Amino acid sequence: MTHPYRSHTCGALSAAEVGQTVRLSGWVHRKRDHGGVLFVDLRDHYGMTQVVADVDSPALAVLDSLRAESVVTIEGSVKARSEGTVNANLATGAIEVYARSATVLSKAEELPMPVAGEQEYPEDIRLKYRFLDLRRETLHANIVKRTQIIRDMRRRMEDTGFTEYSTPILTASSPEGARDFLVPSRIHAGKFYALPQAPQQYKQLLMVAGFDRYFQIAPCFRDEDPRADRLPGEFYQLDLEMSFVTQEEVWETMEPVLRATFAEFAGDKPVTPAGEFRRIPHAQAMLDYGSDKPDLRNPLIIKDVTAHFVESGFGIFAGIVANGGTIRAIPAPGAGAGSRKFFDDMNVWARGEGYSGLGYINIKEGVPGGPIAKNHGEEKTAALVEALGLGPNDGVFFAAGKEEQAAKLAGLARTRVAEQLDLIDRDRFELCWIVDFPFFEWDEDNKKVDFAHNPFSMPQGGMDALENQDPLTIKAYQYDLVCNGYEIASGSIRNQSPELMVAAFEKVGLSKADVEERFGGLYRAFQYGAPPHGGMAAGVDRIVMLLCGAQNLREITLFPMNQRAEDLLMNAPSSAEAKQLRELHLRVVEPVKPAAPAQGKVVAPE
Amino acid sequence: MTHPYRSHTCGALSAAEVGQTVRLSGWVHRKRDHGGVLFVDLRDHYGMTQVVADVDSPALAVLDSLRAESVVTIEGSVKARSEGTVNANLATGAIEVYARSATVLSKAEELPMPVAGEQEYPEDIRLKYRFLDLRRETLHANIVKRTQIIRDMRRRMEDTGFTEYSTPILTASSPEGARDFLVPSRIHAGKFYALPQAPQQYKQLLMVAGFDRYFQIAPCFRDEDPRADRLPGEFYQLDLEMSFVTQEEVWETMEPVLRATFAEFAGDKPVTPAGEFRRIPHAQAMLDYGSDKPDLRNPLIIKDVTAHFVESGFGIFAGIVANGGTIRAIPAPGAGAGSRKFFDDMNVWARGEGYSGLGYINIKEGVPGGPIAKNHGEEKTAALVEALGLGPNDGVFFAAGKEEQAAKLAGLARTRVAEQLDLIDRDRFELCWIVDFPFFEWDEDNKKVDFAHNPFSMPQGGMDALENQDPLTIKAYQYDLVCNGYEIASGSIRNQSPELMVAAFEKVGLSKADVEERFGGLYRAFQYGAPPHGGMAAGVDRIVMLLCGAQNLREITLFPMNQRAEDLLMNAPSSAEAKQLRELHLRVVEPVKPAAPAQGKVVAPE
Repeated sequence: MTHPYRSHTCGALSAAEVGQTVRLSGWVHRKRDHGGVLFVDLRDHYGMTQVVADVDSPALAVLDSLRAESVVTIEGSVKARSEGTVNANLATGAIEVYARSATVLSKAEELPMPVAGEQEYPEDIRLKYRFLDLRRETLHANIVKRTQIIRDMRRRMEDTGFTEYSTPILTASSPEGARDFLVPSRIHAGKFYALPQAPQQYKQLLMVAGFDRYFQIAPCFRDEDPRADRLPGEFYQLDLEMSFVTQEEVWETMEPVLRATFAEFAGDKPVTPAGEFRRIPHAQAMLDYGSDKPDLRNPLIIKDVTAHFVESGFGIFAGIVANGGTIRAIPAPGAGAGSRKFFDDMNVWARGEGYSGLGYINIKEGVPGGPIAKNHGEEKTAALVEALGLGPNDGVFFAAGKEEQAAKLAGLARTRVAEQLDLIDRDRFELCWIVDFPFFEWDEDNKKVDFAHNPFSMPQGGMDALENQDPLTIKAYQYDLVCNGYEIASGSIRNQSPELMVAAFEKVGLSKADVEERFGGLYRAFQYGAPPHGGMAAGVDRIVMLLCGAQNLREITLFPMNQRAEDLLMNAPSSAEAKQLRELHLRVVEPVKPAAPAQGKVVAPE
Repeated sequence: MTHPYRSHTCGALSAAEVGQTVRLSGWVHRKRDHGGVLFVDLRDHYGMTQVVADVDSPALAVLDSLRAESVVTIEGSVKARSEGTVNANLATGAIEVYARSATVLSKAEELPMPVAGEQEYPEDIRLKYRFLDLRRETLHANIVKRTQIIRDMRRRMEDTGFTEYSTPILTASSPEGARDFLVPSRIHAGKFYALPQAPQQYKQLLMVAGFDRYFQIAPCFRDEDPRADRLPGEFYQLDLEMSFVTQEEVWETMEPVLRATFAEFAGDKPVTPAGEFRRIPHAQAMLDYGSDKPDLRNPLIIKDVTAHFVESGFGIFAGIVANGGTIRAIPAPGAGAGSRKFFDDMNVWARGEGYSGLGYINIKEGVPGGPIAKNHGEEKTAALVEALGLGPNDGVFFAAGKEEQAAKLAGLARTRVAEQLDLIDRDRFELCWIVDFPFFEWDEDNKKVDFAHNPFSMPQGGMDALENQDPLTIKAYQYDLVCNGYEIASGSIRNQSPELMVAAFEKVGLSKADVEERFGGLYRAFQYGAPPHGGMAAGVDRIVMLLCGAQNLREITLFPMNQRAEDLLMNAPSSAEAKQLRELHLRVVEPVKPAAPAQGKVVAPE
């Protein structure tokens, strides 16, 4: 035993080593004093071993004097635990180590937060003492699982013929995206690099440079205001691009990769098989689910019932329909048998969400009830009930208004009804593609057409569509991958034609000169032989969250910043020295009043 | 054949497919018109296929009209080449494809630089049109090889029990290192993040957080002035750290990994076997090779001959020795038989390097010649020749001066003599560890002791050495890995004791309060149970250069910046919009005169 710190890790010993002399090093996880005999759970990255120091052992006094989380080396002999004390939940639960000596490697001060036990602790303490927080069982396991998921993705991508290329992190500002993080140049006064929001342009340049099947576990940076589902600063994408492909080939290539990663880490939860991911057109998703990221574990399907309310006796809906509005129905199976309060509560909720309300019909033993049924007329109500296929004790809600509003409310109501009625099978992963996204959308603020998603996507119908079609009806070869109600990836076939690129940007009010100025590298590249290409980017953090069952990004991130974009452990951001600012040709302008971050329009490439 | 672009890649077809109808897509690499028959080399990422369009084919007119580097889809039939035209150097050289149709996917404009042929081209053109440059055979192959090397390293690290953790890229400024890139915070006026110069502190925090065997292919950032062997901006390290280790365990763990990667990509060049990397103490390396990154392919060994020149008849050396100076001898085997000009040229070269000159003795047929031999005295010269083991036609050079200067000159002379005499076997990779680096060094500018390398390293002898030893004699558990004269990795066992950390920093004039302020996260972490830990970081770019045989980092980097730290393709850095600067609470201060970057002392962690 020549190694000064360990002959085994704390997760290695079993009955096979009984009788051996071993050396272990690790953290004092827990101590229990059983009247002159001290039991210490010694922990390292690999596991936990019970160490026993009895009254004869010189280790007793050493261990007794130590606080939890001190680091020690133990030398001792492995003994089988007596039958009643075997711990089947612990890999090393069949043995314990009788300590002959203990050497202190690092004494712990009084802890600001405990490691053993995993009590809830305030976030600022957890982040400031992240090195303690990360020792806690669940977070430690989540971080390890995160690394395993990324490793699994990477190996599957490589095995599918993709090559990982790292693209630059100090790059150019991308004026069409979200807000950039800027990096001042020391050599070029007044000029700035930007951190990439995504490697979008570089991966397209890679395709034009003749590489094929690129991928990257890519760090991405957006200086956006805090949101519950996004950490400030950086995040990771599984970014990929392929040459000479159709969108179908992208889907067929990536379904087996992502499905396999999900299946590998989903435990025993079912995952949609590769080849069976539904491909739902965007318009269909908005109709059926009121969302472009539907949770398919929710069995409820929204129906359009606008036609039923033409000249209805229920004046509010009749009026909405007469004004070109839309009525969507959300079934609530079995709810009619229950209390009326459920229906009224849903209405109150909808108002709380900023809508004018949520109408309903509650059918009790075959009799439709509520104000709508009353006013709509018996025959018409019967026809409606039949069209919706409602049973004798079902309920149904109605979202009414302008089409977009009605669809959105219906989508929210669909989720809430299913949650209230407990209709969602949470122990599964349902994956689907949402396809045929609109290329443009109406920007109400600026009264103009704008790109709905990725400006670099190929419009369906090509130049003909751009020249002859109402732009708001043009679809793009653009798709999302959705899992359990979350968008987990987004992609498109790219517009690799310089003429089409200019024509597309002209629709949103930008000239050829603007394109040359803002996307000069890519635009120039397209002049010299650009292959058809496309790809996607999957959100690594979101996928890890789903597979860890974590509710917060901080539970799957090593050293996250807080919601104020501060790293409390490393004390970032911090003041720069005057010399640094001088070198960077910058002066800080202290704000007169607290800055109110602007709420700019965000069109982020993927 | 339902795929619209290809049934095969351009590298896939062989005699097995003769007779098949195929579809290929790629770039028009070269066209040759053989009187009505057009031969096109069609190229994609995977290879090259010869396409033939004869006078009957509708493809002829299409292909004839295209410039090189246009992108086309070809449909045609595979035919065996006639015996005389088979190209054994090409994977597809047994066949050609007779085109029945050609569809243009992207027309190329007149090229600013050719792709086929790989002529030398000015760097600014190559960087501005990097997407063309990257299509060229050597660069394309280097980039692919780079990805393969990184993939190989990563897999070997994983297979050796290491786990890849990504550490933050937006982090805190590290005041003891090289110059940071700063990132202004929008939310916190006047405060800045920094891009990591290395994940040094984070990887140590990971060990304190109870993880073990960390690695990362880590992007690192230093805002340093251009140097021939460093690209501006970012570079990659294979960064690693282990808990509960000695330096020997780090070496024994990493030798097989790095040796295997070298062997995998070295072609048929021999690589030092794992387990046989020499471990040369720093002081020994300075003596024997005059360098802490010796090229072991060079067989010359420097000898200290100071004692020989005590009271020598050669007054200059006698004087130097009397003043405490040092004389080092560099053998030049066989050079005595040659011309005297070789010796005189070396002397001129040494003066050109800023030294006062390089003395020598040239032995011709057993007779020592030159001014030193003449004045030193016959008997003493004979003793010197014998001590150095010189043969009857050898030469020897002498570097004299203060020890550090003499050692350095001797090292440079050793390299030059070996180059001039062609003694270096270039077709091999010789790997060795340089160990026991000094912990401190004398900072002549500031007349104080400073850290020689990594301030986070563990001093040999611990607190006792810090308290009782001349600091300049203290060594650290600090090591470099050297290959063929290049430092390719650097590492150490870390100082994980808060008391030792403070004591070490006090030696360089920093107080406990300074340590708390500058390295608060790490210092705090060490209070709560820190395991002994150590590791290293290997320069990925340098290793790739060695294995590609490339002379310039730009030949192994996808999208490098130029030496002015500009990305000519993406146009970075560039001006920020007034709104962006306002949001960041910054004002640009135009420099009055061109800024002269400061030449600050650099102590970069690894």
